[in-house]
Amino acid sequence: MSIASELKPTARFLMGPGPSDVHPRVLKAMATPVVGHLDPEFIEIMNGTKEMLRDLFDTKNELTLPMSGTGSAGMETCFVNLLEPGDEAVVCVCGVFGERMCDNVERCGGKLIRVEAPWGRPVAAEDVERAMKGRRPKLVAVVHAETSTGVMQPLEEIGKLAHAAGALFMVDTVTSLGGVGVHVDKLKIDAVYSGTQKCISAPPGLSPVSFSAAAVQAMERRKTKVQSWYLDLGMIRKYWSGAKRTYHHTAPVSMIYSLYEALRMIFEEGLEARFARHRRNHELLRDRLEEMGIEFVVAPEHRLPMLNAVRIPDGVDDATVRSRLLDEYNIEIGAGLGEFAGKVWRIGLMGCSSSENHVNILLAALRKILGRK
Amino acid sequence: MSIASELKPTARFLMGPGPSDVHPRVLKAMATPVVGHLDPEFIEIMNGTKEMLRDLFDTKNELTLPMSGTGSAGMETCFVNLLEPGDEAVVCVCGVFGERMCDNVERCGGKLIRVEAPWGRPVAAEDVERAMKGRRPKLVAVVHAETSTGVMQPLEEIGKLAHAAGALFMVDTVTSLGGVGVHVDKLKIDAVYSGTQKCISAPPGLSPVSFSAAAVQAMERRKTKVQSWYLDLGMIRKYWSGAKRTYHHTAPVSMIYSLYEALRMIFEEGLEARFARHRRNHELLRDRLEEMGIEFVVAPEHRLPMLNAVRIPDGVDDATVRSRLLDEYNIEIGAGLGEFAGKVWRIGLMGCSSSENHVNILLAALRKILGRK
Repeated sequence: MSIASELKPTARFLMGPGPSDVHPRVLKAMATPVVGHLDPEFIEIMNGTKEMLRDLFDTKNELTLPMSGTGSAGMETCFVNLLEPGDEAVVCVCGVFGERMCDNVERCGGKLIRVEAPWGRPVAAEDVERAMKGRRPKLVAVVHAETSTGVMQPLEEIGKLAHAAGALFMVDTVTSLGGVGVHVDKLKIDAVYSGTQKCISAPPGLSPVSFSAAAVQAMERRKTKVQSWYLDLGMIRKYWSGAKRTYHHTAPVSMIYSLYEALRMIFEEGLEARFARHRRNHELLRDRLEEMGIEFVVAPEHRLPMLNAVRIPDGVDDATVRSRLLDEYNIEIGAGLGEFAGKVWRIGLMGCSSSENHVNILLAALRKILGRK
Repeated sequence: MSIASELKPTARFLMGPGPSDVHPRVLKAMATPVVGHLDPEFIEIMNGTKEMLRDLFDTKNELTLPMSGTGSAGMETCFVNLLEPGDEAVVCVCGVFGERMCDNVERCGGKLIRVEAPWGRPVAAEDVERAMKGRRPKLVAVVHAETSTGVMQPLEEIGKLAHAAGALFMVDTVTSLGGVGVHVDKLKIDAVYSGTQKCISAPPGLSPVSFSAAAVQAMERRKTKVQSWYLDLGMIRKYWSGAKRTYHHTAPVSMIYSLYEALRMIFEEGLEARFARHRRNHELLRDRLEEMGIEFVVAPEHRLPMLNAVRIPDGVDDATVRSRLLDEYNIEIGAGLGEFAGKVWRIGLMGCSSSENHVNILLAALRKILGRK
């Protein structure tokens, strides 16, 4: 029998690709005593959570709720509920999360139609149009904010192409939601998912999802059962809405407390003010990094404000700098993934981590470590 | 834009089928600032969590970790990683959670062999033996503690039958783990899962799982991909062990803090003392309820100490009593599920909720509401 040592991790400044810093109010919310998942008071908390999520997604979608898993569970929720074996799915790929979507399509028995762009660039609508010609895909899936590359994907044209082809339009907003506008109804997005640990600034563990009426209809017309019991929205929605709440699985009560409080803080700040803050701190970081001769990977018009992918300067050792930032300054930044490994740093300015102070401490530490003025 | 009202649920005494009361130390652990999921200090917390889970499962299994979802995600993890389309699976059914296993088998494309017992009784080993005759199932699955009925399922004989037939032995210990002994190695259990919100007394949201070497070998010899990306243990184990931790999904850091602290408290108390406490409080509740003329559903030799299923006395309205307990005394007990709806109460004495004080407040409130002495 071994008892592990006391839980006392060092306080960090989280400036990687997520999780981001969590406000003390949200941390405190998690220490709220647990109530039952069918307690009338918890039902009210669920209802408030759904309402605020609808406002954040800018949608009136009835089926809007947080799935009991991280963002990747939200991705899988969308695919397993909408795809049936043999269905065609168009996936736009320009980084790790587009690749993960492809893997999901295959695991659902779907027929994958890949549309690619080089890492660091968004997928072009023309390429989507070409790939769909003569086909009748069930859905078209795209990543709004590609966390592995720092690219913001334009959505409007691809959404129109999807609908013109009679397909559902699915969007990954794990990194964008809460940091830039995500307009689900205006863009006619049919299935969308996100994560709590990026610009929402709650701890990782939940994935907000929202389905349009068309997506719900597609679910209801399925010929086969959803392959995942845990992620079956047909059952989960009966727990999250209606007069009679039917038990599905025991909801992660404390995590929902944290999301609830984080959402309250988002609306106290106001969405437009929050998005402006994310832009402003991105611009400050960009200006100062460029003065140091550090370049961005992505062209200005496609850059994400909350995830800054920059080239590691020649002659600088990636791991040494990240370790020194963590060990000497308690600052976490992200390594490059896939073909960007060792070549790119990913600096997150998400939610509570998007502040002028965060930018300033990182710049000061980087200057010292790199020996720059 | 609507901001939901302040988060301030009433403090409850959780004496239903879970979640159970969470100790303030565990609640406080969740308010620990979040660190990154690849932070070296978090890796140490993961390692400590795995070590303590191994001790709790009484196993040396290398592949022992908490899945990032509730108990039902743990159930699905076992099925999707071990079953391939066409594989035969024997499932013992005597309540809701055995039924849920059957649903999982079908969603995996498995061939289901059901072995049933009436609600309130465990499944008989002879019935399992008969059902397996002439067959070569891939696995035999059984629920150790059937939360819907209060039955403790004897495991030893069924485990032997499974192995004699060359099958893997899978056990649901969602409600038993931390309240009675779960001896994974001694009973040669190949795949086991649990939940955090029962006798571990952490909030709901994680599912500890453990796989034997034989189960790992079965995973590695699969001909098809695991149908769930989120629950694919072949990838998740690369994040949870080894020198190089490969990112899979962003771990639910705060939930793992809560599990870590709850496990520390379990080993501070000691397993045998904890199991004895669960038995003792069950016996106190049983003696006093029987004095009031309230009967148990399950025969004494098959009763769970942590989940007490009792018949609602004739002429007593189920919903009224449960509402009054909640509204006037802040005590939550569980309703009956399925064929026990309206006929049975489920009284949980799990983890922190297994105390003499909990038993006393419930008995006093029940006597008052029912007008008994």
